[in-house]
Amino acid sequence: MPRVSETEVKRRPGGRSARVRAAVLEATVELLGVQGLAGLRIAEVAERAGVHETSIYRRWGTRENLLLDALLEVSEQLRVPDTGVVRDDLIAYARDLAAFLATPLGYALEHALAAAGDDPDARCARDRYWETRASRSRQIVVRGIERGELPDTVDPRLVIEMLVSPVHFRVVLTREAIEPEMPARIVDALLGGVAGR
Amino acid sequence: MPRVSETEVKRRPGGRSARVRAAVLEATVELLGVQGLAGLRIAEVAERAGVHETSIYRRWGTRENLLLDALLEVSEQLRVPDTGVVRDDLIAYARDLAAFLATPLGYALEHALAAAGDDPDARCARDRYWETRASRSRQIVVRGIERGELPDTVDPRLVIEMLVSPVHFRVVLTREAIEPEMPARIVDALLGGVAGR
Repeated sequence: MPRVSETEVKRRPGGRSARVRAAVLEATVELLGVQGLAGLRIAEVAERAGVHETSIYRRWGTRENLLLDALLEVSEQLRVPDTGVVRDDLIAYARDLAAFLATPLGYALEHALAAAGDDPDARCARDRYWETRASRSRQIVVRGIERGELPDTVDPRLVIEMLVSPVHFRVVLTREAIEPEMPARIVDALLGGVAGR
Repeated sequence: MPRVSETEVKRRPGGRSARVRAAVLEATVELLGVQGLAGLRIAEVAERAGVHETSIYRRWGTRENLLLDALLEVSEQLRVPDTGVVRDDLIAYARDLAAFLATPLGYALEHALAAAGDDPDARCARDRYWETRASRSRQIVVRGIERGELPDTVDPRLVIEMLVSPVHFRVVLTREAIEPEMPARIVDALLGGVAGR
């Protein structure tokens, strides 16, 4: 293998640092999935990731910031369906979200997000998380407009917000279970309206 | 004034107990409105209500249960509009909710609700809170059906859930401000649907 020049190393400062970050986030997500939020201790994350506890505090500052960063990693697992039919995509997306939030990991992350403070670091991580999620899921609506299923006056952001809000509302606030038919009922109300013709 | 017989006192055991309860809840709500959730201390609530701290712990057990009970008191302030037009009622209700959740008191109560545990006491107080709120606000939709503005196949519960969820979603999770036009946009999407004719 060719020797890497020092200039090149400097151009790629991510190397070790990126590996540490990935290991810590992976350990955080694994532990959250096993024991939920209340039991999560930085010492345990450090041990599982094979790094010093101080490295975690140096990079993330607080347990809360680490959690928010782990959220972004996890949200990559939530696929955005593309079946070619907007109704099916919306239902599948709401169903996957409900299923994810019903897992110990999803539940823990959702409540961590609700409980996170309003300091600049937390705000920044939170905004990045929701913006990432929204910009991906909005594609469902954008594709529906492109196929002519939805008028081009539709606001993709509003549609996605109205689709996912009732799911989040139950998980965070009322703590009611989400019935299997709920995603389809939300989507039909949203697409066709409840006022009738 | 006629002397009250002992039998009568026994028939109305609420007297002093009910007054203590009211004073404590009022003090809780006042303090929450002034200093938010983080600063709320039982000792201060007791002092303001003129009761012993131990009386509060004996009745409510935890700070959390006290908060959930205070929620019910506060929710009585949220009026359910009755203008005679379902669209106007829905918009007004969502606007009032958004305005309330933007106050320090509303914000504190909402986050207390999100953070509350899942022990039987907390669950019972929470279920009572949401059931009270929902059964009152559903009347908007029921009246709309009675006036023939909405078909009788409409599920009042689903409509109210889809109306209030995006407001709660922003306050608890994304922490985005609610634009003044958002309630009307939600209601129009919900009544008319986004798919067009």
